[in-house]
Amino acid sequence: MYTAIHTISQHKCFGGRLGYYSHNSKVNGAPMRFSVYQPPRAMRGRRVPILVYLAGLTCTDETIMIKGAALRHAADNGLMLVSPDTSPRGCNLPGETDDWELGIGAGFYVDASREPWSSHYQMYSYVTSELTDVICANFPARRERQGIFGHSMGGHGALVMALRNPDIYVSVSAFAPLVAPIQSPWGEKAFSAYLGDEDREAWRAYDATELVRKMENAADRPPILIDQGMADQFLDVQLHPHVFEDACREAGYPLTLRRHEGYDHGYFFIATFMEDHIRHHAARLVGPGDG
Amino acid sequence: MYTAIHTISQHKCFGGRLGYYSHNSKVNGAPMRFSVYQPPRAMRGRRVPILVYLAGLTCTDETIMIKGAALRHAADNGLMLVSPDTSPRGCNLPGETDDWELGIGAGFYVDASREPWSSHYQMYSYVTSELTDVICANFPARRERQGIFGHSMGGHGALVMALRNPDIYVSVSAFAPLVAPIQSPWGEKAFSAYLGDEDREAWRAYDATELVRKMENAADRPPILIDQGMADQFLDVQLHPHVFEDACREAGYPLTLRRHEGYDHGYFFIATFMEDHIRHHAARLVGPGDG
Repeated sequence: MYTAIHTISQHKCFGGRLGYYSHNSKVNGAPMRFSVYQPPRAMRGRRVPILVYLAGLTCTDETIMIKGAALRHAADNGLMLVSPDTSPRGCNLPGETDDWELGIGAGFYVDASREPWSSHYQMYSYVTSELTDVICANFPARRERQGIFGHSMGGHGALVMALRNPDIYVSVSAFAPLVAPIQSPWGEKAFSAYLGDEDREAWRAYDATELVRKMENAADRPPILIDQGMADQFLDVQLHPHVFEDACREAGYPLTLRRHEGYDHGYFFIATFMEDHIRHHAARLVGPGDG
Repeated sequence: MYTAIHTISQHKCFGGRLGYYSHNSKVNGAPMRFSVYQPPRAMRGRRVPILVYLAGLTCTDETIMIKGAALRHAADNGLMLVSPDTSPRGCNLPGETDDWELGIGAGFYVDASREPWSSHYQMYSYVTSELTDVICANFPARRERQGIFGHSMGGHGALVMALRNPDIYVSVSAFAPLVAPIQSPWGEKAFSAYLGDEDREAWRAYDATELVRKMENAADRPPILIDQGMADQFLDVQLHPHVFEDACREAGYPLTLRRHEGYDHGYFFIATFMEDHIRHHAARLVGPGDG
């Protein structure tokens, strides 16, 4: 039984329930933590859509729940907010704690193909498959109504997962995402370690800009909402959203990229625009009869 | 010049500005940290009312800003949210880090009269006087429009400061406050250390229940809003809100005490009812012409 979970703690919030949980991940071969906010509608026994949030470097499954100002809007819109941790922890892999850009807290949402990471860092498969199984086995969730969003490294993860799995994700958005990791120092370091330097072609499967460039019928895909602060300290070196904007324009992919003067890379920026993102997802996830 | 401040960092949020600051406190004889959220109205150069938040044991000036879901409502209502730290830090007093209920993070918002605490732990005077001077010298604040609220130990501080200073505080509320510290283990330990065991009469000046019992013309005072979770792990031993409720009823003090099934002592409870509290304060702090 691979979907059994352990409850760490639960807290009533906005009429729903925020819980911290752990389970033994088969995919990652390690214990994983995750957080779930069940809206009041779920507490009344109704099955509700799932909105997955992927956090950025150094963050955990708790970050969005504590800092994101998201729970009220998840409650109001009847969405189950699910956030995995940003990597396995405690696998004792060499170098896993040496660098905040690699290893613990920096799984980059890829399936690592290189040792030592490949035995435990399978975050792409973990999020797109195993975590959903665990959620649906333990909470009143609607598997067929799933959206995904994230921040920075997690924005990269959300875009890649949504672009590659239109059958799984009905809605997608991101805050200050790493839209072209192949062209950024963060992505280059992580992909070199997790995927290896020999076959850089394989990196393209984890690069949102590359995925859009190759896409057919892009105009029919779920529209993407991206918010980006113009005082973001990582904007020029790591994020360069214009690269993704250009790719979407050329492919005809529906993108709304909003640039906000004065906002930085942190959670005060995210909190400010959280309501817009949850409404963006709810518009596609919540249907007639869900009221 | 005792009102000079050092800016640690500032972050745009909900159109306003959240900042972390420090200054050399004359009253506490130590550096103190504090946080300020300036609403958009203040960024446009208008002077706005002040709402002071006092955090609980182990918390800091940052807690309400990160966990409280307060900034959006402060922005919407045009209030400047100010939070001091819960004690001086780094004074190297004996025992200041030995116990989470005493010393650093546990100033209890009293003016200590006993060594070693008395030379640095003057949080009552710090909040009611010096901090206001510092705020008004550095931010577009309206000194004559000031409210105060807090959580747990900070709820105790807010109630005591408001009850003793009707000329300073126009509005008051609390989340799960320590309403009768003299009758609680937390209060007994702190007051013994800070105020001494010999003169327990002096403790009454820092006990909200005692203050209300002695009050004349209580009906004319600012109404108090208190929210209390009924799954609060400290409810029975430390908080016992019914003691304060009884005192208010007998004195004729206007109190709204709301009991909420299922909510615990933490910030997910606080976030849930934050909007109500900020509206409670705005109703008294924001007047005609402030729109």
